[in-house]
Amino acid sequence: MSERIEQRVELGERSYPIWIGGGLLSEPGILDAFIGAADVFVVTNDVVGPLYLHALTGILGTRRIDHVELPDGEAHKTMATLESILDRLIAGRFARDAVLITLGGGVVGDIGGFAAATYQRGIRFIQLPTTLLAQVDSAVGGKTAVNHPGGKNLIGAFHQPSAVLVDTDTLATLPDRELSAGLAEVVKYGLIVDAEFFGWLEAHAADLLARDPAALQYAIAQSCRFKARLVAEDEREQGRRALLNLGHTYGHAIERCAGYGQWLHGEAVAAGICMAAAFSARLGTLKPQDVERIRKLTAALGLPTTPPPVGAEEFLAAMSIDKKVAGGRIRLVLLRAIGAAELTADFPQDDMLALLTEQLQQ
Amino acid sequence: MSERIEQRVELGERSYPIWIGGGLLSEPGILDAFIGAADVFVVTNDVVGPLYLHALTGILGTRRIDHVELPDGEAHKTMATLESILDRLIAGRFARDAVLITLGGGVVGDIGGFAAATYQRGIRFIQLPTTLLAQVDSAVGGKTAVNHPGGKNLIGAFHQPSAVLVDTDTLATLPDRELSAGLAEVVKYGLIVDAEFFGWLEAHAADLLARDPAALQYAIAQSCRFKARLVAEDEREQGRRALLNLGHTYGHAIERCAGYGQWLHGEAVAAGICMAAAFSARLGTLKPQDVERIRKLTAALGLPTTPPPVGAEEFLAAMSIDKKVAGGRIRLVLLRAIGAAELTADFPQDDMLALLTEQLQQ
Repeated sequence: MSERIEQRVELGERSYPIWIGGGLLSEPGILDAFIGAADVFVVTNDVVGPLYLHALTGILGTRRIDHVELPDGEAHKTMATLESILDRLIAGRFARDAVLITLGGGVVGDIGGFAAATYQRGIRFIQLPTTLLAQVDSAVGGKTAVNHPGGKNLIGAFHQPSAVLVDTDTLATLPDRELSAGLAEVVKYGLIVDAEFFGWLEAHAADLLARDPAALQYAIAQSCRFKARLVAEDEREQGRRALLNLGHTYGHAIERCAGYGQWLHGEAVAAGICMAAAFSARLGTLKPQDVERIRKLTAALGLPTTPPPVGAEEFLAAMSIDKKVAGGRIRLVLLRAIGAAELTADFPQDDMLALLTEQLQQ
Repeated sequence: MSERIEQRVELGERSYPIWIGGGLLSEPGILDAFIGAADVFVVTNDVVGPLYLHALTGILGTRRIDHVELPDGEAHKTMATLESILDRLIAGRFARDAVLITLGGGVVGDIGGFAAATYQRGIRFIQLPTTLLAQVDSAVGGKTAVNHPGGKNLIGAFHQPSAVLVDTDTLATLPDRELSAGLAEVVKYGLIVDAEFFGWLEAHAADLLARDPAALQYAIAQSCRFKARLVAEDEREQGRRALLNLGHTYGHAIERCAGYGQWLHGEAVAAGICMAAAFSARLGTLKPQDVERIRKLTAALGLPTTPPPVGAEEFLAAMSIDKKVAGGRIRLVLLRAIGAAELTADFPQDDMLALLTEQLQQ
């Protein structure tokens, strides 16, 4: 078993640790410092719950524990599901000092976190992410949300967890497709802030797909370190944190056009990153050979490099509803190099339809 | 026309002003400093909208403005109404930099503020309270919420406005019953922090009911000053801010037992304050003659001093679901004197049913 690695999100009195290691869900008392004697409400889903809920309740001791198992999948990240969680919290008379624990992937973390953000105007919560995507990205940073028919994550709140525990053993049960999807967000960190890490990923793509424990732990710990730094610099995404959206405006449009739940979020982000890279090259900010490196690593990690067949007008409309729009202009994270990104609206907006048509036909 | 009075809520970079005066809704550009060139979405209701929406749009200039008119009343402070507001924001493609304005009473402010708190994880908003209750209490301090069949304000968020503008001219159209309801919260400030102000209220009860402009402006400005101070000391209600809940645990139980919308919030709080005072006297912390002073002022302001006919068990169950419960114990704001309150669970909890039976039979 690998040694536990700790990262920290530094946000003053709302700072919290991220622990990354094997076997965390087998350590009795590991959560005591964050929960005290409070009641616990666990939000999980019908895939992860049967696998790990028993272990979790085992380390929680004699506290009062209740839980809800959501149906699995992005299609259930809705206001209706949020209300079902809140109904359960209210029916169970959980008090303001209760702690909510999310046990699952990004959907469980986002919607469980939003329930924690809004129940009684905010209760404490702990993230126990069990998918790679949640472990490297969505569980860290306090973004919570549900989807709306009009767009992804349009309704939500910033609500920081009290702790994030990444038990890397949970990756053993993760389907290959979801492992790859998580790696899309890992690649993202290399692209936006660290070319060296991108090179490491190129060298270790096969190890990661083979689930080599040391390689996975290193990739997760590095990702959490980058994420924690960006969140600490800019909690509410008014500046640099927006770089984390590389590929996401395209990606959200892909998810929307394909129908939520058809593409995994990470798959859409992977194709979105390739689109953003190609667009950066088209605008002259990124070298064409870097676009090729990005596509090659994306493909090597078992991820799509192109969007599904969609008309440019539909795609543009789906992009425009994304939150990264200000003053009617689309803002995109574009690449200047591998390891250097910028958020910009400084490109020919009026030509977006033509540029997209070009991209979607490739 | 009286001169404008300014109070401030000091919360670091989230500080904001409260302006109190006549004619504010007739001053073109008065909101410019808070909105810039951003799009505006107004949340109002079908009583206040027809009266003041025209004036508001008049001072907003040429910005893009959309609005929604909710049906009037506490019964509509629900998740369903929240979703209808969010649907409109999304359909209108309002961006993250848009500003939401609440024009109305406590319900409009609470639910509009919650929409602002959750749309795209939080956009700016401005409170334009038009009822006395909202002007002296709910519009200040960033508490937003909707009700749940299981209890009042159980779902919500802390989200501070960018400004609060109290145009006292709007009180001209307020029904007498609602004017009195607002005065219940004004009395509360005297009771929890300022005996002198309580004395001023005893001396000016008739002026207030006669809507004397100077008396009303003074009462509102003082109330906002007390509220701003408590919010600045304790934004998230982990300490002294909880004193503002004097009478509210009883009051929420009254609202719930009577059926939401039957009693006005302020009416329930008035009776709740009298119950809290009587309970304080029963426990020996408050002098019986002070209970009488409180009942007398409450009655003089046209407010109820006793709860509706409800069984003690039902009432206790309704109290217990209130948010002011920790570790299974009910916490209440009790009075030590007029002008001195404390939050405590230090009373015979096991006798609550007997004590309530006694109180409800009086």
